[in-house]
Amino acid sequence: MTTRRVRTGSRPGDRYVRIFRPTAGKFEQDEEHHLIATEAVFERPGMSGHVERLRRFMVGARLPSAMESHERLGVVKGLAVFASDNISSSAYATEEIMRVLVLAGAGALMLTMPITIAIVLVLIVVVTSYQQTIHAYPTGGGSYIVASDNLGPLPGLVAAASLLTDYVLTVAVSVAAGVAALTSIFPVLFDERVVVSLAFVLLICLGNLRGIRESGTIFAAPAYIYLFAIFGLLGYGMMRYVTGTLPDYVAPEEWGVSEGTSALGLLLILRAFSSGSVALTGVEAVSNGVPAFSAPESKHAQRVLIIMGACFVTIFLGMSFLAGHVGILPDPTEQKTVISQLTSALVGEGSPYHYLVQLSTALLLILAANTAYADFPRLSSILARDGYWPRQFQYRGDRLAFTTGIFVLTILASLLLVVFQASVTNLIPLYTVGVFIAFTLSQSGMVRHWWKLRESDRGWWRRASFNTVGALATGVVAVVVGVAKFALGAWVVLILVPVLMALMMAIHRHYLGVRSVLTMDEVPPMPKAEAPQVIVPISRLDRAAYRAVTFARSISPAVMAVHVSENTTEAEATYRAWEEWDTGVELVIVESPYRSLLPPLLAYIDAMRASEAGRPVVVVVAEFVPRYFWQNFLHNQAALRLKVHLLSRPNVIVANVPSHLWDAAAAKEGTGVR
Amino acid sequence: MTTRRVRTGSRPGDRYVRIFRPTAGKFEQDEEHHLIATEAVFERPGMSGHVERLRRFMVGARLPSAMESHERLGVVKGLAVFASDNISSSAYATEEIMRVLVLAGAGALMLTMPITIAIVLVLIVVVTSYQQTIHAYPTGGGSYIVASDNLGPLPGLVAAASLLTDYVLTVAVSVAAGVAALTSIFPVLFDERVVVSLAFVLLICLGNLRGIRESGTIFAAPAYIYLFAIFGLLGYGMMRYVTGTLPDYVAPEEWGVSEGTSALGLLLILRAFSSGSVALTGVEAVSNGVPAFSAPESKHAQRVLIIMGACFVTIFLGMSFLAGHVGILPDPTEQKTVISQLTSALVGEGSPYHYLVQLSTALLLILAANTAYADFPRLSSILARDGYWPRQFQYRGDRLAFTTGIFVLTILASLLLVVFQASVTNLIPLYTVGVFIAFTLSQSGMVRHWWKLRESDRGWWRRASFNTVGALATGVVAVVVGVAKFALGAWVVLILVPVLMALMMAIHRHYLGVRSVLTMDEVPPMPKAEAPQVIVPISRLDRAAYRAVTFARSISPAVMAVHVSENTTEAEATYRAWEEWDTGVELVIVESPYRSLLPPLLAYIDAMRASEAGRPVVVVVAEFVPRYFWQNFLHNQAALRLKVHLLSRPNVIVANVPSHLWDAAAAKEGTGVR
Repeated sequence: MTTRRVRTGSRPGDRYVRIFRPTAGKFEQDEEHHLIATEAVFERPGMSGHVERLRRFMVGARLPSAMESHERLGVVKGLAVFASDNISSSAYATEEIMRVLVLAGAGALMLTMPITIAIVLVLIVVVTSYQQTIHAYPTGGGSYIVASDNLGPLPGLVAAASLLTDYVLTVAVSVAAGVAALTSIFPVLFDERVVVSLAFVLLICLGNLRGIRESGTIFAAPAYIYLFAIFGLLGYGMMRYVTGTLPDYVAPEEWGVSEGTSALGLLLILRAFSSGSVALTGVEAVSNGVPAFSAPESKHAQRVLIIMGACFVTIFLGMSFLAGHVGILPDPTEQKTVISQLTSALVGEGSPYHYLVQLSTALLLILAANTAYADFPRLSSILARDGYWPRQFQYRGDRLAFTTGIFVLTILASLLLVVFQASVTNLIPLYTVGVFIAFTLSQSGMVRHWWKLRESDRGWWRRASFNTVGALATGVVAVVVGVAKFALGAWVVLILVPVLMALMMAIHRHYLGVRSVLTMDEVPPMPKAEAPQVIVPISRLDRAAYRAVTFARSISPAVMAVHVSENTTEAEATYRAWEEWDTGVELVIVESPYRSLLPPLLAYIDAMRASEAGRPVVVVVAEFVPRYFWQNFLHNQAALRLKVHLLSRPNVIVANVPSHLWDAAAAKEGTGVR
Repeated sequence: MTTRRVRTGSRPGDRYVRIFRPTAGKFEQDEEHHLIATEAVFERPGMSGHVERLRRFMVGARLPSAMESHERLGVVKGLAVFASDNISSSAYATEEIMRVLVLAGAGALMLTMPITIAIVLVLIVVVTSYQQTIHAYPTGGGSYIVASDNLGPLPGLVAAASLLTDYVLTVAVSVAAGVAALTSIFPVLFDERVVVSLAFVLLICLGNLRGIRESGTIFAAPAYIYLFAIFGLLGYGMMRYVTGTLPDYVAPEEWGVSEGTSALGLLLILRAFSSGSVALTGVEAVSNGVPAFSAPESKHAQRVLIIMGACFVTIFLGMSFLAGHVGILPDPTEQKTVISQLTSALVGEGSPYHYLVQLSTALLLILAANTAYADFPRLSSILARDGYWPRQFQYRGDRLAFTTGIFVLTILASLLLVVFQASVTNLIPLYTVGVFIAFTLSQSGMVRHWWKLRESDRGWWRRASFNTVGALATGVVAVVVGVAKFALGAWVVLILVPVLMALMMAIHRHYLGVRSVLTMDEVPPMPKAEAPQVIVPISRLDRAAYRAVTFARSISPAVMAVHVSENTTEAEATYRAWEEWDTGVELVIVESPYRSLLPPLLAYIDAMRASEAGRPVVVVVAEFVPRYFWQNFLHNQAALRLKVHLLSRPNVIVANVPSHLWDAAAAKEGTGVR
């Protein structure tokens, strides 16, 4: 430990000042005024030490800030984290289209393949335009950044609010969908689906608290198993198609699907298209998460985006193609998914491969939530950095994860799951509206971006037209989805987004206001140190009061004690006892005929404040610190209320003098009497 | 205003001390050190002023302590307050007996009158022995006082816990019963019975907040209307009996009551007796509330007790007699009460007099809760005075009512009403066990009391035998009721009472422990005032930090600033800016490689504490006070957590320097820079 007294400053009134630099164990000394805290500062005694060790066991060792670049993702883990959401849609995109078309009869299902191709084309446009976005914003170009950078802060907030809403829904919907798939394999779990869902959310939360890299490691397996299982299935199916040995599937009679085609209007086709466009969700995840990739960030992100698009398109096309040729029908009772029917038609119902496909699909659906866990906290931290969201979201926890965002996402998604009883049918109409709003804004922002660069970039026209097509396509989908799902629940999102925006703007205004009053343009010279007026409210003449008076005398010569009394006899007795104490401090008795303690005391302090004309008034509050927390209900009620009331009074400084008298050692240490 | 500087004390180091005595408006000066607060100290500006005026309108003007004796009750109001609970039982005691007897057939109902007489005899014994109690304890002899005074603290606590439980149940049961009676007159209210019940509880709460005297005034009418209506009815009935013109009531066929008598065992008779002994509830209320009567307290209380007993016995006997002779049967569907059947048989169904009886019964049942409102807060205050209950219960509010007890009773009773959906059937089994336990203990205590006085009091033997009979009678009823109702819910009470006792003993032990550590047997001379070591944690170099440093310098020459930084660049910049401030205070930078703010700061403060060997360490916390409460979520999170952690550290004094910078005037006032 280094302790040194130095004389600082040159003005009269400057004093010798002690510099205290403990170096033993908990700190390392860097230079004279600069200490570096070691991990030892986290050591805690007793119970909180155990809590701390449990926490380390759960989330892993602390990571120093310098490790940030090691915590990034490569292509393999990046694909698992950021592509899960999108690729998981391949498990049900074909089915969503068929489910709408079949309303016009089994014959209408021949449109499945054309609509699939149309969506694939939109997807290609969207992926390409996001490639451009990542290229233009190599340090991270989420919809919020692109929109606010090019279209202004308001569209940026629309994108941010839409995405935040959608990320919460993504977690709820994908976990609910995954658990639904799981309960169709293990029906015993059905009654416990809410609990199972919450357990999965907690598991993913915990994985993410360990840091994004570890969450990639933990949750990578299901994604890759799904890809291998499904590619194997589709490859086998295509082989049988080529050799002309595809089975001819016969749907159960009782589904009662009419053979012919009836009333296949444009509206139904549009609805099928909009249902199938869940295929596009998750595409923006990669561009939002660019800074999570290891260097070169944009290259890695672009590669993940391309692989993701390729995988998705292949599965989607293959699935729709084979489903059509095998003659799969969507199950109106929603018991058997299209993917399950196709698998059992090709490899046999109940075969191990059938189970593999079912189980990996279920797990991948659940892990699609992990993509939202990567993006929600990151977007929140960017919003907090820009002052639109509470500052806490900005800080990285001890595993470099954005802890606050992870917790808030977990709480909100869990609430949704409980309120909607983990029902996909109830949740899904709220989903996808937000993401398409963000898509459209981001694409439009990119058009504007290229327009601004038109002087320097010769290829701007080509790039801008790609993004224009993307903006139009996603804009149309946003409107179609919004209209089609409005009454079913999309209206909730359309109300929530403006509310969130208003909140963000209020927070921003507040932080700006605070900064403007707190910033000092020029720093006035330090005033001459003048001791403050001190008031010590005394309730009983006991050890706590003695300590308070001792402290008050140590900080100022101008000390007064005040005792509020209910009756004259007690007041007189207190005054006589006080005189015997001989503290050198005057006691004023305030008699309160209406028995209240607080109003007379506050009135006295206010009068003192007024008479001081700007000099701070220090109120020394003696506080008894009990051994157990519940005992606080038996104490300090008056002290607490006093402090709350004093908080709103400018120029009043409250000093708490605690008495830890249950602890004999602490009591001796803390008397202030040596 | 008087401000004066006097030199106090004679030891070196004593200083000139200012005595500040504001006298304008809010205080009157009594003598040199003694001010008396006027009502003006309650004046508040703005919103809280409106709240204050609303409160005065609701509960009435403040009453000074000197008014206490004026707030007492005479016989008329005392009967309304303390007898409502007991007298209201006369509305259903007969029915309770008949309801059990009829299980053995209509013939068994002939036992109604004998059982009524048996209960009346017990009641006479109990009333007489309580007369003795009041005589022996003229300043208030509730069961708790009598039991703890004569049998020891543990039986006292059994009585106290039983009574507290029972008072809460009394409020819930009587309001639920009254509202049930009300909804049978106005069936439209049935669906809203929980809300209606809560409204009545709130109304009685409000009445009691106005003080016990006003609650007597407000709630006296229903009690007296009931008495007049019921005496009129019984008188008219007796006249018709004497003239031999009593109607012969025929119960509806569909009630299907068998004519004969089957299996009328002793057990059934005992159950009928225990059901009818609800008649005894409320008898102890008067003796618990003696101090609420105006002088001579015991005379007034005794008179109320006698009148109450006489009224009750008359109604009970008359009701059972007439019900038997008219041939009333208890309605198995619980639609029509015995009292309602009797009224309609005598004066005609739906006649105005029938309505009068029904309505006044309903209101009286509700107002029986008022008796519990008189006793629960009073018993709580006595327990608080003896250190068995949180201290807050001891204080009288600005209307001299025991505000805390009133609020707590309201909250608990409301909870019960909500949980049990205001259903009398569900609540009643919990009721009456507690009251009979308390009865028995109080009677046994009185036996002991007379035994102790046997030397000086020649009539002790007579008195003691009265109380012995009372103790035996109530003890038997306690056991019978406890056994009969055990499985139905009485077990809850039998668990709750020991739990409450354990809590009371824990509170008592705690207060004793606190008193022993806080009391100073001899007061050491004041130590020489030595300035403390001060630490100012600095987060940003802004106006709030400037104010904190200014304050720190004003209370001690030993000041250090500490800045915890996440990265070296920021740390260096802060240090350079600090040097430009030229505060004369040294800044130590603590770099936190794991980004946490708190552990390094706490470790630094702990190291400082250890090096100070007992001298207090003052931590000056700059706090931004936002304009609206919700904005606190955007600020001070770190400051709050720091304060919570520092609270558990002996010898650390936290001084809050608030910045009210949103308020331009306050900002100017509060800079500390003049």
